[in-house]
Amino acid sequence: MRDAGKYDGPLGVLTALACVQRLHDRQDRLPFAIEIFAFADEEGLRFHSSYLGSKVVAGTFDPAMLRLADSEGITLAEAMRAFGGNPDILKASKRDGSNLLGYLEVHIEQGPVLEALNLPVGAVSSIAGQSRISVHFSGEAGHAGTVPMALRRDALCAAAEFVLAVEALGRSLPGLVATVGQITAQPGASNVIPGLVTLSLDVRHQDDAVREQACRQLQEQASKTGTARGISPGWHTLQQHRTVPCSPRLTQLLAQAIEAAKYPVYSLPSGAGHDAVAMSDLTEIAMLFVRCKGGISHHPAESVAPEDVAAAIEVLEQFLLLLAKGQ
Amino acid sequence: MRDAGKYDGPLGVLTALACVQRLHDRQDRLPFAIEIFAFADEEGLRFHSSYLGSKVVAGTFDPAMLRLADSEGITLAEAMRAFGGNPDILKASKRDGSNLLGYLEVHIEQGPVLEALNLPVGAVSSIAGQSRISVHFSGEAGHAGTVPMALRRDALCAAAEFVLAVEALGRSLPGLVATVGQITAQPGASNVIPGLVTLSLDVRHQDDAVREQACRQLQEQASKTGTARGISPGWHTLQQHRTVPCSPRLTQLLAQAIEAAKYPVYSLPSGAGHDAVAMSDLTEIAMLFVRCKGGISHHPAESVAPEDVAAAIEVLEQFLLLLAKGQ
Repeated sequence: MRDAGKYDGPLGVLTALACVQRLHDRQDRLPFAIEIFAFADEEGLRFHSSYLGSKVVAGTFDPAMLRLADSEGITLAEAMRAFGGNPDILKASKRDGSNLLGYLEVHIEQGPVLEALNLPVGAVSSIAGQSRISVHFSGEAGHAGTVPMALRRDALCAAAEFVLAVEALGRSLPGLVATVGQITAQPGASNVIPGLVTLSLDVRHQDDAVREQACRQLQEQASKTGTARGISPGWHTLQQHRTVPCSPRLTQLLAQAIEAAKYPVYSLPSGAGHDAVAMSDLTEIAMLFVRCKGGISHHPAESVAPEDVAAAIEVLEQFLLLLAKGQ
Repeated sequence: MRDAGKYDGPLGVLTALACVQRLHDRQDRLPFAIEIFAFADEEGLRFHSSYLGSKVVAGTFDPAMLRLADSEGITLAEAMRAFGGNPDILKASKRDGSNLLGYLEVHIEQGPVLEALNLPVGAVSSIAGQSRISVHFSGEAGHAGTVPMALRRDALCAAAEFVLAVEALGRSLPGLVATVGQITAQPGASNVIPGLVTLSLDVRHQDDAVREQACRQLQEQASKTGTARGISPGWHTLQQHRTVPCSPRLTQLLAQAIEAAKYPVYSLPSGAGHDAVAMSDLTEIAMLFVRCKGGISHHPAESVAPEDVAAAIEVLEQFLLLLAKGQ
């Protein structure tokens, strides 16, 4: 991420390291090996990919992606080599899932729920499914001073109606989040009526059926708005991820670990995607959320209290000890 | 203009040249001199100036503008020198208005009115006043997957409400045109709630009081939308031009010339700005509009029928002959 915070991602790696350090300092030996992953490029900003490193480990990385170019024309393969990596051995980097006990990821919540409940940590129930759609409205550009209002086919006015419809639907369905994060109006001059508007739509819900129904409703809304205004709507689904449930067995163990660390147990869904999504193709997953300030993430203001980091390390340690006991 | 048409501007110069050619071919001598101006950079796209050439002639050019830089850092003075011009003699290029009979400008209508009425030409009554305003809405960025709808302060949703309010006001007041032509949402990622939206607002009306009242109403609307959503609105007036009336004397003569050329006389306001606005500081002005296809301008599809160009040349000639008769 550009202009991101310092906890989204690194916190999970560092709490795992700290936990292993504590076990090591105490010379505590477990009946299984612990591996800590620091995955590359979960966000996929540079190459419009996501879960890049975790997909390699899970064996779901598509080698065709190596030819993707960034905005400066550098391909993923070139960037990897320039960094000292070797794109030719990615396939061999797939882990064998059969000898894994599971995958646990610690991550900041990136939302305001734990803060509102005054809880340092929470157990994730599932990672919400997501649809990413590119929507456009094609009207007619014209001179802002000379085309009477009644004769306009203003693409931005159609887009504005749609943005408000997205918000209204998001507010009306519990658990749904629907967001327009990007918008461009063309030709984009202050004295020209916009002829073409393109916007991004992001829809998420724990229940795939609810998300899919919401997307259908919004697509109908785009058509309706277009028809009423003589404007052609366009709808292109870019990505769809189904909801990934966390492992009931590992999550139960995580709840016990939270209890053992003397914190209240609270379960919540994750609205954000995580490497755990990719890792779920390989093994059972669980996730521990850590409270963050104001729910802010993807921003330099991202902040986590040291006490909450300590709580996460404690829970992680309890989890490993409980897991060892069960072996 | 980038991606512009070939009639907006050049048509006025070429019809004037054709008209003088006809007088010359007939060896018709008038009791006054005719000067044809081809003004530079009426649109002001490169240096965010407008009426650049005509302001020099009218003596209203501000030499401080020579230091304005384009998007590549080249100043207006440098661009002028690179083109073979001399920025040091601009002040001396001011014309003396006392020995001028007036200024007549031929221009495409850039709107659909003459086409709808099936008229080749029209006499302009006045050039509409204009307000150009930069509006912003400052909310709070956040993760599109994790911040519940009820806790959002989405700047784009506020902006969308405003865009529709602009359209509604434009539709409700006869003769008003109000346009949002530019919009940017920041940080501008598909998975981030927009924290800041900036948009352009262009408002025009023949009656300055109506325009000013409309701007006040829209500013109140921006505040109202902001308050309801916990979002801070910003309002910066970038430019304001009062309505410039055309000279009743010259416009009366222009109507007689249209009649003499055997076309119906129709009077209409100009919603677009023209060099005539700058020239009105120097002398009396009049404008002849020529029908254009579909009202389209600032676009490669800009089109004028040869018969309508012929009509404009004929009217221009009649105008000069009538003006000569009056001397």
